[in-house]
Amino acid sequence: MLSSRQILLLSTSRVHGYEFLEYAKEHIDKLLRGNNVTNLLFIPYALKDHDFYLARVDAVLSKWGYNVTSIHKGDPKTLIQAAQAIYIGGGNTFRLLKALYDNDLLDLIRKRVLEEGVLYLGSSAGTNVATRGIHTTNDMPIVYPPSLDALKLVPFNINPHYLDPDLNSVHKGETRQERILQYQELPEAGVVIGLREGSMLLIENNTMILKGLCKSRLFIPGQEPQEIDVGTDLSHLLNR
Amino acid sequence: MLSSRQILLLSTSRVHGYEFLEYAKEHIDKLLRGNNVTNLLFIPYALKDHDFYLARVDAVLSKWGYNVTSIHKGDPKTLIQAAQAIYIGGGNTFRLLKALYDNDLLDLIRKRVLEEGVLYLGSSAGTNVATRGIHTTNDMPIVYPPSLDALKLVPFNINPHYLDPDLNSVHKGETRQERILQYQELPEAGVVIGLREGSMLLIENNTMILKGLCKSRLFIPGQEPQEIDVGTDLSHLLNR
Repeated sequence: MLSSRQILLLSTSRVHGYEFLEYAKEHIDKLLRGNNVTNLLFIPYALKDHDFYLARVDAVLSKWGYNVTSIHKGDPKTLIQAAQAIYIGGGNTFRLLKALYDNDLLDLIRKRVLEEGVLYLGSSAGTNVATRGIHTTNDMPIVYPPSLDALKLVPFNINPHYLDPDLNSVHKGETRQERILQYQELPEAGVVIGLREGSMLLIENNTMILKGLCKSRLFIPGQEPQEIDVGTDLSHLLNR
Repeated sequence: MLSSRQILLLSTSRVHGYEFLEYAKEHIDKLLRGNNVTNLLFIPYALKDHDFYLARVDAVLSKWGYNVTSIHKGDPKTLIQAAQAIYIGGGNTFRLLKALYDNDLLDLIRKRVLEEGVLYLGSSAGTNVATRGIHTTNDMPIVYPPSLDALKLVPFNINPHYLDPDLNSVHKGETRQERILQYQELPEAGVVIGLREGSMLLIENNTMILKGLCKSRLFIPGQEPQEIDVGTDLSHLLNR
């Protein structure tokens, strides 16, 4: 029984008209401060320049009253063992997942979050790697991770930055929905949640609610894709 | 010295305002009929339903006077050994590459095209797998191929369906150019050609020319991205 998890998965860190992470501040504060946590371990592996990335994240989170440590400043496993909350940021999902494998961190993060109550915050690629696998990332496979399997903090896939087809476009590349449905042609594929910019999933123990600025799109194999309103209880998807 | 290759790499099979493959008919005819070839071996691995895919391709190509055999109708290696020309169509690049590995066809196709003069036609995913690797595909990693390395008929990467940023969009996901530049941060990355819809590369022996309806975008590591006009001689990129 997995019952201690406290997880917030953001589609993105950047929404038009908001500062970095600002659209999600209320929910980030509830997750962290609501649990009396002000120290955050940041994992910048999805971008190449870790110092630059840390500076960008720290500039915002320190203003909000949080102390940010980055995993590249010390021994990764020791820092995860000591963490109260982990934030994995966006960038390239393949680069991120490969770095988690290279540093042998997947089992440890999973255990810390699912069994020991460490808070998890993810955005974009950091949301992708929180799921069962990165099969529905939008990123290019710039490096080759040893597997597509990810942290499995939740038992489904997410497509961050979900985009509706542009009905005015003459571009004939596959739409996002077509790509997700191609995945679901496979017998091993499961549920996919398309999180539009500004959407997020809040998982507290065994409940999961859609939060944020806009509807999301839910893909269940064998069913028509469905629109989900903000506030919808999606807890049943944690047990599929 | 690789000197016998005859390769046509299309960004896509579908361009707005044209029938399937129609925008490239002149160049396809030159490649095939210009070499007195009317029999084509089709590889439909990028889509799930091979019969459906064959029917769609055959409907067009048989109208143009070609005889299309699909690789799923017989023994794959025997069919490749007998082929005069190979056409690999689009769909999901990961599914396509995995099927080529599962059927142990990469070395054989490479040898047939580079050493024995078999003509190669690719579109979209079929263009991606013709290159050194699929690192710059737009597709989702719905399956896990044993490597990202591909047929290596050319020594660079291609991004098919290359898209310019939509300046009116408020979407904050990475642009195509940002994704390609993230790849080129890696020391092992090389040249990437972004083929816009309607662009194609024609490789004859040791020459390569940009053909088609519109400019392409050339990414050389360490340099600013460049626009390339239709008709530009890109042969130097075959020897990098």
